[in-house]
Amino acid sequence: MRFVKGHGTENDFVILPDPGGDLDLAPAVVAALCDRRAGLGADGVLRVVRAKAAVEPAVRAQADAAEWFMDYRNADGGVAEMCGNGVRVFARYLVDAGLAAPGEWSVATRSGPRRVRLGATGDVSVDMGPPERLGFGTATLGGREYHGVRISVGNPHLACRVTDPVAGLDLTRPPGLDAAVFPAGANVELFRPVGERHVEMRVYERGSGETRSCGTGAVATAVAAAMAAAPPGGAPESVLGLPLAGEWTVDVPGGTVVVAFAGGTSELRGPAVLVAEGDVRL
Amino acid sequence: MRFVKGHGTENDFVILPDPGGDLDLAPAVVAALCDRRAGLGADGVLRVVRAKAAVEPAVRAQADAAEWFMDYRNADGGVAEMCGNGVRVFARYLVDAGLAAPGEWSVATRSGPRRVRLGATGDVSVDMGPPERLGFGTATLGGREYHGVRISVGNPHLACRVTDPVAGLDLTRPPGLDAAVFPAGANVELFRPVGERHVEMRVYERGSGETRSCGTGAVATAVAAAMAAAPPGGAPESVLGLPLAGEWTVDVPGGTVVVAFAGGTSELRGPAVLVAEGDVRL
Repeated sequence: MRFVKGHGTENDFVILPDPGGDLDLAPAVVAALCDRRAGLGADGVLRVVRAKAAVEPAVRAQADAAEWFMDYRNADGGVAEMCGNGVRVFARYLVDAGLAAPGEWSVATRSGPRRVRLGATGDVSVDMGPPERLGFGTATLGGREYHGVRISVGNPHLACRVTDPVAGLDLTRPPGLDAAVFPAGANVELFRPVGERHVEMRVYERGSGETRSCGTGAVATAVAAAMAAAPPGGAPESVLGLPLAGEWTVDVPGGTVVVAFAGGTSELRGPAVLVAEGDVRL
Repeated sequence: MRFVKGHGTENDFVILPDPGGDLDLAPAVVAALCDRRAGLGADGVLRVVRAKAAVEPAVRAQADAAEWFMDYRNADGGVAEMCGNGVRVFARYLVDAGLAAPGEWSVATRSGPRRVRLGATGDVSVDMGPPERLGFGTATLGGREYHGVRISVGNPHLACRVTDPVAGLDLTRPPGLDAAVFPAGANVELFRPVGERHVEMRVYERGSGETRSCGTGAVATAVAAAMAAAPPGGAPESVLGLPLAGEWTVDVPGGTVVVAFAGGTSELRGPAVLVAEGDVRL
């Protein structure tokens, strides 16, 4: 089985070229590939399938808008909808392999076509869609309460501004969340401004623990940072409603990404690196 | 750079074929290769160099006894002497690549030539040398004292028999050792008999934390298990001196190995699996 290994801000993936959709990717095979000691090791698998060859009708229906389908699997083998860092690495692979030209085009995903933009080398941008501001919320961490903003970027987030460097936080245990406010749980981001439209962030992903990077978490953090930077005096409701614009730089443990707001949507930009390619025997 | 990825009971390695010793393996390059998210990910690198092409005179001096030199590097880039699981994976690579025939021959290492034995497929055995019984000792773990046997297998060990399943032990923190007894520290093994000449074991490696497998630790554990199984009534000194013979099966978190004693030396036998090969761009 041919593979390529790549990562976006240390969110890493095994890419499996499979234009005709012929591979039988049983969950056990995905788990074996993602095993960090007995396999290749990754956060997930990106199978590269032509949209018109996909099994799912909802993906085949995207074939006019997007030639290639990112069939994303979590490390445990389960199917997942979307992954902001994954789709950036996926797009870099397509250009690197000569399957797509540099420029702007869409990738088919289980949550619909996603617009990407990239050159022959360098950073890759992906449209993350319009983030939704849901209100305020609280997380408990190490006996302390952290207040923040509830945001949906397809998945639920709580982004909390802190005053001390995020390196000092203990994220070895899951933050406590009020189940009435977060019935499906949430990813919790803790961020601190470190410059002009520039924050550092750490994230605890529900079900995964702390990770080196989280694309939707970076978007949620940029939304919360924009709200925290709004002129003082406004009622909380007006802060929730302020227009989002411009770029925010977000330092995550695995690197740096930029979140740009324009035309009601959000864009995630950052590195996408292909590290190795070859054959895997699993 | 060409690479092969393999593991022995989940002790995993990046193998770099370099017959002429031409690669410049700076510590930063090794660390980048072993990075589990931004690189290929491994416990260490095994560079495959002809013994007569090695830089070290002590390795070139082994060239009559051993055609190939295992240039072992830890994940942090530092040079290391030997690795029992590494040399088994190294031997499997040589046979798989057609650089050596199945059978019995020696691999040059920084601690001298090591005899290996393997078929065209299946387990690989390596001579681990005569283990040395040094006396008794104690480790402290989670506020409890564990008594065991101090053993040298080239490196220092303390192997302690426990009565409860090893799965329940907390090895997240380093065991406490009396610095007067262990001036260089020690790997600490905790083992429990689970059948006839059969034990389960977990290991805390000095400087690394808990690992999935440890070749020298398995040998030390088999020595301690043989001593614990000696007929009762003997003085501690006579137990220390009893002859070692026969085979012990040692279950480690990453799989199962067999330790065999004969002719005053010890042999480690177990799986060595090559998982992938290709080109790495770092």
